[in-house]
Amino acid sequence: MKALVTGGAGFIGSHLVDRLLEEGYQVVAVDNLSWGTLDNLAHLKDNPNFKFIKEDISERLAVDRLLGEERPDVIFHMVAHAEIRSSAEDHYVDLEQNLIPTIHILEAMVKHDIPHFVFASTSAVYGEAALKPTPEEYSPIQTSLYGASKYAAEAFAQAFTQLGNISVWSFRFSNVVGERARRGVIWDFVHKLKANPHILEILGNGKQTKEYIHVSDCVEAMLIGYKRSSSKVNTFNVATDETKTVDQVADIIIDELGLKSSEVKRVYTGGERGWIGDNPVVVLDASRIKALGWRPRVSADEAIRRTARWASKVIG
Amino acid sequence: MKALVTGGAGFIGSHLVDRLLEEGYQVVAVDNLSWGTLDNLAHLKDNPNFKFIKEDISERLAVDRLLGEERPDVIFHMVAHAEIRSSAEDHYVDLEQNLIPTIHILEAMVKHDIPHFVFASTSAVYGEAALKPTPEEYSPIQTSLYGASKYAAEAFAQAFTQLGNISVWSFRFSNVVGERARRGVIWDFVHKLKANPHILEILGNGKQTKEYIHVSDCVEAMLIGYKRSSSKVNTFNVATDETKTVDQVADIIIDELGLKSSEVKRVYTGGERGWIGDNPVVVLDASRIKALGWRPRVSADEAIRRTARWASKVIG
Repeated sequence: MKALVTGGAGFIGSHLVDRLLEEGYQVVAVDNLSWGTLDNLAHLKDNPNFKFIKEDISERLAVDRLLGEERPDVIFHMVAHAEIRSSAEDHYVDLEQNLIPTIHILEAMVKHDIPHFVFASTSAVYGEAALKPTPEEYSPIQTSLYGASKYAAEAFAQAFTQLGNISVWSFRFSNVVGERARRGVIWDFVHKLKANPHILEILGNGKQTKEYIHVSDCVEAMLIGYKRSSSKVNTFNVATDETKTVDQVADIIIDELGLKSSEVKRVYTGGERGWIGDNPVVVLDASRIKALGWRPRVSADEAIRRTARWASKVIG
Repeated sequence: MKALVTGGAGFIGSHLVDRLLEEGYQVVAVDNLSWGTLDNLAHLKDNPNFKFIKEDISERLAVDRLLGEERPDVIFHMVAHAEIRSSAEDHYVDLEQNLIPTIHILEAMVKHDIPHFVFASTSAVYGEAALKPTPEEYSPIQTSLYGASKYAAEAFAQAFTQLGNISVWSFRFSNVVGERARRGVIWDFVHKLKANPHILEILGNGKQTKEYIHVSDCVEAMLIGYKRSSSKVNTFNVATDETKTVDQVADIIIDELGLKSSEVKRVYTGGERGWIGDNPVVVLDASRIKALGWRPRVSADEAIRRTARWASKVIG
C-alpha cells in the first residue's frame, strides 16, 4: 500500500509519516517547506520505503502531475494554514491554502482513480458550539475563516464522493501538541519565557479551556478511524475529554522549564478570546472514534510537558 | 435605504428588484448578463430609483470598486451557478462562481462598512437528508458540488460576521419557479414539447419528489426573514410543504400546453436521480420562516402552470 502525505514535513504530517512507515506503507511526503521543515524527516533519509517531494499543492497542475505519477492508494491531506489569528488580517489565505488545494487533490483523485482521501480537519469547524461535548452531527455557525475553510473542504470532499470512486475520512482535531510543534500556545509560551523568565504575556484572560491531545494519539486515531470505518463519508472528532485552561498550561510549562510560578508575572491581554475567531471553550464528544477502540494514551499534562521540553531544547 | 442586488437581471434577482422598488428601496442591480438578461429589467428603465450596472463579481477588484462607489445598506447576493448537472463535468465552476464571488463581496463589505448580507442559498445544501421535512439545524452530508459551494458560502459569511459589523441572512430555497425562469424542469419540458409534442424525455424515473415554490412567494420570504429577524446569523428554509413528482409536473405542463397526456409518450432515462447530485426527495421544514408570518400564496400547481404558460409564450 502506498500513502501520500501532504504537509508531510509538518508537525502532525511528519509524525503520521513515521507511523505509516511502521505500519508497512510505502510513503511519499509532499511539502512546500513553508511551515514544514526537512528536520522533521531527517531520520528517514535512508529509509527505502520513504520518499520526499518538494511541491506546492496550491498549484492545480502540479497536483495533477504529482498524483498521476505517484498513484497512491490513499492520500492523507495534512497541509493547512492553521493560524486563525493571521486570517483575521488576510481574508483569502484560508480559501487559498485550505480549501482550494483540497479541491485540486480531489479533482486529481477523480482523474487518476485514487480511492481514499483522509483529511485533517479541526474542532474549529464547530465555531462556538452551544452543545458541549460537541458531537460530529452538531450543526455549527462558523466563527473563523479557518473553521469555515476546513468545513468547506469537508463539504467539497463529501460531494466528490459522488463524482468518482472516492471515500473520505475527516478527523476534527482538538488542540494537537507534541514534539515538532513549532507554533501554538506552548511554543509561544516557551519562547516568551526563554526571552524573559519573569513576564509571561497571555492572550485573552487565561481562562480559555481546551483539550490538549498528544500527536501520537492523534495519529493513532487517524489510523484506527481510517482502517475500521468504511462508509463513503466518515467523520470523527478526535479529543481526550481532558481540558486545561490556558493558565493551567502556563503552570505546567513554567514548572517544566524549572521556573517558579510566583516569580513569573502574568500579563493578560484580556477578553474571553485570545484573538478573533478564538473559541473560549472547546470540548468535543469523541465517542464515535472511541467506539472503534481508540483511547488516548498520553495525558494532557504529559502531552503539554513533552511539548514544552522539546520546544525548550529546540529554542535553546 | 439602498439595496444592491447581484444577479439582478436573473430570474429570482429581477423579481426581487421589482419587490424592493415597491417597498421604496433605491435599487442597484448588478449582473454580468451571462445568464441574466436585460429583458427582465426592461420595464424599469425609466424608474428613477433603479440603476443597472453590468459587472462581473467574480473579479475581486471590481467588487471592491462597486461596493465602494455604491455603498448600499444591504446586499442581496443572488448570483449563482445553479446547474448541478454541468458541475459534474467542470469541478471548479461552483467554487469560482458561487463561493469565491461571495468572499469578494464579504471582504468588500468589511472594508466599506456595509452591514447587511442577504444570501440566496439552496435546499441542495442538505444533500440527501435522512430527516424529512429537513430543518435548518440538520447536519448534512453534501452530494453535489453546487450544494457544497453554497454551504461553504454560508459558512464563510458566518465567519465574516466576526470580522466586521456584518449580519447575514441565508435563505435555502426549494425549487423556485415562475415567470422569467429560463432553466429548470419546466423550461426544459416546455422546450421539448414545443419541439415534439408526442415525446417527452424525462431525466430519471419521473418519481423525484420536490417542492415547487413560486418566485413571488420566495421573494416575499426573503423580505420577511430579512426584516423580522436580527441575529448576526439568520438561516431560513423557504418551501411550501406541497410536493410534486416530476411526472406530476409533466402532467400539469402537458395540460397547460393544451396537449393530451395519453398522446405524449414519456421516455425515462431511468434511475432515482435525474443527474449526478440530484436528490430524489426534497422536503424542507419551513416552520422557522412561517413563525415570522410568511405563508406561500401560490399553490404548486398554479406556480407550475404560470411558469409553463410564460415559458410557452417566450419559446413561442
